[in-house]
Amino acid sequence: MDKSILVNASPLPGMPWEDRPAGGRHEVLWRHSANPVIPRDLTPTSNSIFNSAVVPFKGAYAGVFRCDDTSRRMNIHCGRSVDGINWQIEEKPVSFIKTDSGIPDSEYKYDPRVVFVEDRYYIIWCNGYHGASIGMGYTFDFKEFFQLENPLMPYNRNGVLFPRRIGTNFALLSRPSDSGHTPFGDIFYSESPDLTYWGKHRHVMSPLGSQSLWQSTKIGAGPAPIETTEGWLLLYHGVLNSCNGFVYSFSAALLDLDEPWKVIARARPYLISPQKTYECVGDVPNVTFPCAALVDGDTGRIAIYYGCADTATGLAFGHVGEIVSFVKDNNCL
Amino acid sequence: MDKSILVNASPLPGMPWEDRPAGGRHEVLWRHSANPVIPRDLTPTSNSIFNSAVVPFKGAYAGVFRCDDTSRRMNIHCGRSVDGINWQIEEKPVSFIKTDSGIPDSEYKYDPRVVFVEDRYYIIWCNGYHGASIGMGYTFDFKEFFQLENPLMPYNRNGVLFPRRIGTNFALLSRPSDSGHTPFGDIFYSESPDLTYWGKHRHVMSPLGSQSLWQSTKIGAGPAPIETTEGWLLLYHGVLNSCNGFVYSFSAALLDLDEPWKVIARARPYLISPQKTYECVGDVPNVTFPCAALVDGDTGRIAIYYGCADTATGLAFGHVGEIVSFVKDNNCL
Amino acid sequence: MDKSILVNASPLPGMPWEDRPAGGRHEVLWRHSANPVIPRDLTPTSNSIFNSAVVPFKGAYAGVFRCDDTSRRMNIHCGRSVDGINWQIEEKPVSFIKTDSGIPDSEYKYDPRVVFVEDRYYIIWCNGYHGASIGMGYTFDFKEFFQLENPLMPYNRNGVLFPRRIGTNFALLSRPSDSGHTPFGDIFYSESPDLTYWGKHRHVMSPLGSQSLWQSTKIGAGPAPIETTEGWLLLYHGVLNSCNGFVYSFSAALLDLDEPWKVIARARPYLISPQKTYECVGDVPNVTFPCAALVDGDTGRIAIYYGCADTATGLAFGHVGEIVSFVKDNNCL
Amino acid sequence: MDKSILVNASPLPGMPWEDRPAGGRHEVLWRHSANPVIPRDLTPTSNSIFNSAVVPFKGAYAGVFRCDDTSRRMNIHCGRSVDGINWQIEEKPVSFIKTDSGIPDSEYKYDPRVVFVEDRYYIIWCNGYHGASIGMGYTFDFKEFFQLENPLMPYNRNGVLFPRRIGTNFALLSRPSDSGHTPFGDIFYSESPDLTYWGKHRHVMSPLGSQSLWQSTKIGAGPAPIETTEGWLLLYHGVLNSCNGFVYSFSAALLDLDEPWKVIARARPYLISPQKTYECVGDVPNVTFPCAALVDGDTGRIAIYYGCADTATGLAFGHVGEIVSFVKDNNCL
Amino acid sequence: MDKSILVNASPLPGMPWEDRPAGGRHEVLWRHSANPVIPRDLTPTSNSIFNSAVVPFKGAYAGVFRCDDTSRRMNIHCGRSVDGINWQIEEKPVSFIKTDSGIPDSEYKYDPRVVFVEDRYYIIWCNGYHGASIGMGYTFDFKEFFQLENPLMPYNRNGVLFPRRIGTNFALLSRPSDSGHTPFGDIFYSESPDLTYWGKHRHVMSPLGSQSLWQSTKIGAGPAPIETTEGWLLLYHGVLNSCNGFVYSFSAALLDLDEPWKVIARARPYLISPQKTYECVGDVPNVTFPCAALVDGDTGRIAIYYGCADTATGLAFGHVGEIVSFVKDNNCL
Amino acid sequence: MDKSILVNASPLPGMPWEDRPAGGRHEVLWRHSANPVIPRDLTPTSNSIFNSAVVPFKGAYAGVFRCDDTSRRMNIHCGRSVDGINWQIEEKPVSFIKTDSGIPDSEYKYDPRVVFVEDRYYIIWCNGYHGASIGMGYTFDFKEFFQLENPLMPYNRNGVLFPRRIGTNFALLSRPSDSGHTPFGDIFYSESPDLTYWGKHRHVMSPLGSQSLWQSTKIGAGPAPIETTEGWLLLYHGVLNSCNGFVYSFSAALLDLDEPWKVIARARPYLISPQKTYECVGDVPNVTFPCAALVDGDTGRIAIYYGCADTATGLAFGHVGEIVSFVKDNNCL
Repeated sequence: MDKSILVNASPLPGMPWEDRPAGGRHEVLWRHSANPVIPRDLTPTSNSIFNSAVVPFKGAYAGVFRCDDTSRRMNIHCGRSVDGINWQIEEKPVSFIKTDSGIPDSEYKYDPRVVFVEDRYYIIWCNGYHGASIGMGYTFDFKEFFQLENPLMPYNRNGVLFPRRIGTNFALLSRPSDSGHTPFGDIFYSESPDLTYWGKHRHVMSPLGSQSLWQSTKIGAGPAPIETTEGWLLLYHGVLNSCNGFVYSFSAALLDLDEPWKVIARARPYLISPQKTYECVGDVPNVTFPCAALVDGDTGRIAIYYGCADTATGLAFGHVGEIVSFVKDNNCL
Repeated sequence: MDKSILVNASPLPGMPWEDRPAGGRHEVLWRHSANPVIPRDLTPTSNSIFNSAVVPFKGAYAGVFRCDDTSRRMNIHCGRSVDGINWQIEEKPVSFIKTDSGIPDSEYKYDPRVVFVEDRYYIIWCNGYHGASIGMGYTFDFKEFFQLENPLMPYNRNGVLFPRRIGTNFALLSRPSDSGHTPFGDIFYSESPDLTYWGKHRHVMSPLGSQSLWQSTKIGAGPAPIETTEGWLLLYHGVLNSCNGFVYSFSAALLDLDEPWKVIARARPYLISPQKTYECVGDVPNVTFPCAALVDGDTGRIAIYYGCADTATGLAFGHVGEIVSFVKDNNCL
Repeated sequence: MDKSILVNASPLPGMPWEDRPAGGRHEVLWRHSANPVIPRDLTPTSNSIFNSAVVPFKGAYAGVFRCDDTSRRMNIHCGRSVDGINWQIEEKPVSFIKTDSGIPDSEYKYDPRVVFVEDRYYIIWCNGYHGASIGMGYTFDFKEFFQLENPLMPYNRNGVLFPRRIGTNFALLSRPSDSGHTPFGDIFYSESPDLTYWGKHRHVMSPLGSQSLWQSTKIGAGPAPIETTEGWLLLYHGVLNSCNGFVYSFSAALLDLDEPWKVIARARPYLISPQKTYECVGDVPNVTFPCAALVDGDTGRIAIYYGCADTATGLAFGHVGEIVSFVKDNNCL
Repeated sequence: MDKSILVNASPLPGMPWEDRPAGGRHEVLWRHSANPVIPRDLTPTSNSIFNSAVVPFKGAYAGVFRCDDTSRRMNIHCGRSVDGINWQIEEKPVSFIKTDSGIPDSEYKYDPRVVFVEDRYYIIWCNGYHGASIGMGYTFDFKEFFQLENPLMPYNRNGVLFPRRIGTNFALLSRPSDSGHTPFGDIFYSESPDLTYWGKHRHVMSPLGSQSLWQSTKIGAGPAPIETTEGWLLLYHGVLNSCNGFVYSFSAALLDLDEPWKVIARARPYLISPQKTYECVGDVPNVTFPCAALVDGDTGRIAIYYGCADTATGLAFGHVGEIVSFVKDNNCL
Repeated sequence: MDKSILVNASPLPGMPWEDRPAGGRHEVLWRHSANPVIPRDLTPTSNSIFNSAVVPFKGAYAGVFRCDDTSRRMNIHCGRSVDGINWQIEEKPVSFIKTDSGIPDSEYKYDPRVVFVEDRYYIIWCNGYHGASIGMGYTFDFKEFFQLENPLMPYNRNGVLFPRRIGTNFALLSRPSDSGHTPFGDIFYSESPDLTYWGKHRHVMSPLGSQSLWQSTKIGAGPAPIETTEGWLLLYHGVLNSCNGFVYSFSAALLDLDEPWKVIARARPYLISPQKTYECVGDVPNVTFPCAALVDGDTGRIAIYYGCADTATGLAFGHVGEIVSFVKDNNCL
Repeated sequence: MDKSILVNASPLPGMPWEDRPAGGRHEVLWRHSANPVIPRDLTPTSNSIFNSAVVPFKGAYAGVFRCDDTSRRMNIHCGRSVDGINWQIEEKPVSFIKTDSGIPDSEYKYDPRVVFVEDRYYIIWCNGYHGASIGMGYTFDFKEFFQLENPLMPYNRNGVLFPRRIGTNFALLSRPSDSGHTPFGDIFYSESPDLTYWGKHRHVMSPLGSQSLWQSTKIGAGPAPIETTEGWLLLYHGVLNSCNGFVYSFSAALLDLDEPWKVIARARPYLISPQKTYECVGDVPNVTFPCAALVDGDTGRIAIYYGCADTATGLAFGHVGEIVSFVKDNNCL
């Protein structure tokens, strides 16, 4: 049924799906009953584990996790899991082999995404290089990692690669920022023939006004876009600036398959906003921040990993077809 | 006994009063045991229900509620209840009939108050008109609602009508603001012979200093003033600017019956500050914000509805006479 | 010729007009050759004399002047002149007789406008009352001055009365502000039957964007609107926020005669911006700020008094008809 | 064993120690199972009790507590306890006898420390005198309190006296501040021969960068330094500026015994950060702020009192020797 | 003599050089005696002409000029001159032919540079595209202009192309910015094989501290780098943030010929700071901002065009060899 | 006559006095006709020379001058003059011999004052030590200079020593600051028996409000106080925060001879505000900042050296007796 809109989606093994809760309000996405599924203190030195990237890998799961340690140093760590919920995360951060000796060192790394394109897994993260920049690298096996040039100039965050080329070029979403906490932010699109040189930058989406306040201060791409017959399904976060700070919610939009900087539809309501205690209380209160979305090609089910209060990692379930319908039915364009 | 100070107060039917909890510290106001009595998700599309106005109506209760939806659009909705606790709130916002075609449209509505004056129920709210302004309207039956001119210029919030004329004029409290989160705010008083033209603006109260820090950043009127032989009893909120944002508490003052811009007494301590989890955790942490106060003319008991963390609605009980004594005994003037 | 568009304009005696300079660029307005015509130190204690209001009076000229003294106290002073250029300004500020004993005292007064309506000269100024507010008063003879209620709530500046009633009501332009230097500002319109109670507030104009940057931060009414067959001619200032502070230029718009909150046309370019040394250097660099415009009913000539660098007062000449044409030809609506 | 590094430490009577919890991650410090051991409402008028100072006194415990009352007035109160956990705190604030009639009155007092030096107990607090300043006084018996001159100029906070003279002078740590919430802050050292005149100011430590973000915005001394053979053990708090406000964690450093402005070692990770609900939720979310540390000379055990969310007081246990090792093993210098 | 360090420099015809003034302090650069050589009102609608780019062209001079009009719209205009001082600037802005239909429109254009590379003249400017971005185009004849893709993401300013490829790639300097007046700013280097796709971003220089305050807030490249045997000579501006706003001065650095992100030497003192009235007074006080530098291959003389107070254009003379010596002798690295 | 109020004033040799200009407004202080008497480029590398300290010395004049060089490094330089107007200023900064090896190095020095006390000349300046601090030293001969401990904690500026002990202690005025441009500032008084240890800090004066706006943001002591029979005559600067930055004016107050933190009288008007081009235009526009005042004991005449626009040094003349009368006649207390 609704899986029919999926393009090139593979079966997803072993994920311990939960059904939508009976009773209460109908929810397009519902949280895992054991949330946060990845606790803050899973490794010996972690202060927090959140905003992390998971992919199916060889019949099980691999991931790259943002682990701040108890010095509050920000870095990304590799992890493995059989079921996507119980994880072995390495205590040492990912160590990248530079593909060119001129590639600068990173001051810090955070908020990774992982995307399989063609023959390998690309990691994109926020890379400290004279301020927040986009970092990029790849792995074939989650053992050896290779670092590429930063695709874009500082200051930029929330870089996300598309899972296939658009035309003959690689394609990337990002959000230009400033050197601080950044009270603004639009999503842009860029292309590259070779992952080193980037151009053809196109504006995609801006924050909205009083008709959709949860996304009124800034927005940023979440997981890699999901290809459907209806367009690229993009989960993205939005920020509301309350008198007591930023509130991070997330929802979805549909982008044109061939010209992804053109928005087909965009949901006015959020899908998830910080409402559970583990989303409202933590190192940064009131944050739900998705970085990975896994789709089961057999059923159209989707599992979304999202950071909770910048402290732990939650999991939410849904159906791709229902999310697409939600975007169309609540389109604010 | 203490009801004897009430002027023109009617019996209040069916309110499920709770007694002051035994043991612990003596509290002038005590919270309902089932707080928050109105949850955030009472309607199918509500993100939050708070800062709302309730009045006795035809032997039961009617109300106008601030309901932000899951797009975080702010609007006000009508509701009905037999006991003041279990509510049917309409999914559609209140639709106003303009009393004059020139009255501008509202960009948004929030933080309503409802006051019965002479022959009808007036609704006053924060009205989006080139920024935060005071909106005003009325209803006879909570079915048809009529909108009047904005009484005052932007930027203004927390408008509250007195329940009877002062001399021959209607009287209004308000708080001039700025176009943002407003780091200042005094209460002013204005008069009008006809609800359209307003003047004779008088300063009422300013924030205080280190002797009453909970009200040191800004203050604003809460429910409509309650007439007593001792003066108008005004419940009002105050804001403290901590390093982690605004904290909203509330307390009370007594205003002169004939010249209400003259403050007779003003409590230095708060009556309620955010201390319960549902007041400290939510869309805006650390907010208790009263918008309605119902008095039982037979007993002097009072039921105060207040917004909790900009998320849900709480209820607190007390006695008018005790609050008046509290203001006098803790007078900071 | 172009005077034919004037409505109810009287001859203007004795003004020492100067012709448009020959050569150079064609200017719609040209500066007086002896600018600044009113120097900063004309009275024994004045630090600066600027942003001032002049009217024809009994065959000569009267005026109300902003004179900051050498304590930098801001007040308004009465002055008389035969030719509009050589002035006797009183050393003592204007002393107002309160028309009602309840009218609050002023903390300070600045930026006056003077408008003749029906039978008297109204003075409107920025009045210190718990922050910047609009003050209002009148005189018949520039000897005795009477103070009215503040028409509007704080925080507000740049109040300007229309020279006749609109319908049966007095009409006022103003600009709601905040408690500081105010980085925003729209022009609003309000009405009153009696000058005490005000309402029917209407939004008139907002700042513009990159197509007219000189008016991109805030705008405010200048002199009283001038009635023409083409609409009310409103001279107004606009502010650009450069990296080194605010720049105040001015230009003009046409408002509907019967519904003056409706803008018929609005010039994209400025008429005058700070370019002369006495406009660029002074207590506040880069300010040209018009507060009075005198029209000669015989010829359509106009004399505009404007504050220069918040220090002295300049004079510029032009033709009403040419300004109206300029607004229409450069209309940005 | 590890007590052997202690210098001049006395036995600590009656403290109800708890052992390190079995299982889970190895913690250098562990929280008391009944935290927060001192609740916010222990006195009849307290809004909150936190950031407080405790010392062993005559076989039991005495303390000076920050109690904000329900007017949110900030003051310090004396208390007594047999076991260090159950406290009788006086309802009235400490009343100081001025040692010189010229000593200015305090506008408010908060964040006390208590240190025994030579023959008496010194109290050092944040003293309101034209802004936040350091206040200082002493007591012999916790009945009579005497106030000294402010040792330093405003604006300053977090003053902490050393428990003995350095050379022939008294020695003080402090943190120069501004008049607001202060987005910066280094620890400095000063000396005095007589507690009235201070000088020889020396810089001790600055905030760190991305390698220790929890202490990247400002730092301040906590309890009085503890003398060990390895140096002065200084517990201190650090602040991270998140997009939703300040986060207060704490850790430790070692200072040179003879020249305490020289840092021997400084831990990169925090020891405690706000992770428990009572540390994350309260009047100021996400604060753990130590003001007192009691050491048992017989065993080297340490009991640390720390403010929780600016609301209540928590207790944590550890061993001095382990903390010293932790500082050395995680030295970031 | 000093011309011997020039690489590939051509003779510069017809420039009316002036000698260094005799007497007074020895100046490395000296201003033209008729400064500002290009006045603000050279075209019929210009408010200001500054920050402009000039090149030798067919035995005379061509240029692209920033002309703000009297609406303060920012655009770039083509101009021609025989002697480099007397200019005919077109009243209409440059109209670009898009090289690809997908290239977005510009909201505004300002601060152009012009650089000859291989076979054509490239224009690089600040291009309004969802905020300040780098725009790029080219012309062969200063009649037809062609627009390329924006090379980099917003927010960025001060893009300058190198006059030849570095290795096989084009090379660009730029300064990432924020969406406002940007209180920070480093110079970065990027490369491209095809002018469409850009990468290999490298950090070049940051602002300095108290040893060179004129460049302590932000820095940005000025004219295109000049190739010498000693390295690329880069003229660049620096900004000091005084209590009364930004002050723009300029000086020079030497970059490695093959790896231009490596700085060989950098002058601590400025070469020119705003000291003349036409540099201190204008639309933005205290700005000297170079955008073009023309070198005479026969003599090593250099003519630098620089914006004055964001209002008019000045000209300064010097010798390349002396500037190189100045950088080396005053090297702050 | 008016010299009779002077205490301990010596004759002042060789000063080329100018009489008060005839005509115009009566001025208490009048500017030297050749102002600015010390130009910005007097030394080979000076960018500016201002905010400088001059004293009579051995029948001629000596001084310590703030010279920013063309790297905008801030330092203080010694100078000599026969007539107080024509100066030989040393190209090298003053080099201090530390009186104790532990005295920290200075990051920078600026805004010196020089005061003769007992047997030597003390220099007090703004000393870079982890932010703006007060530096102190002395000389006997303006050849050898000795540096003392910093008397006070950072952040502080505008330290000025009294010319004799108050009681048995040295006495100092200063202005606590923050780490930036400091939008606040009161004058405080401190004492020391030995110039090393300081205490007895007393608040002297705060900025004023709308009755004296020129001193409404912050104030700071100027030259050393002048002893008169009427009290200490203190010249001090005040700052007004306009929408285009800070404006520095100066005036005078009288302090109690024995308890100088008690203000006897304080002038509401300024004596000098920035009105001349050389005061309004320069590196920081609109600054007049006095650092030295020389009194002729024979006549009571006074010569005040003041910084002009943070660029050059001006000189103004007056009579001490007239200034004292001005303070009393315009007393705002």
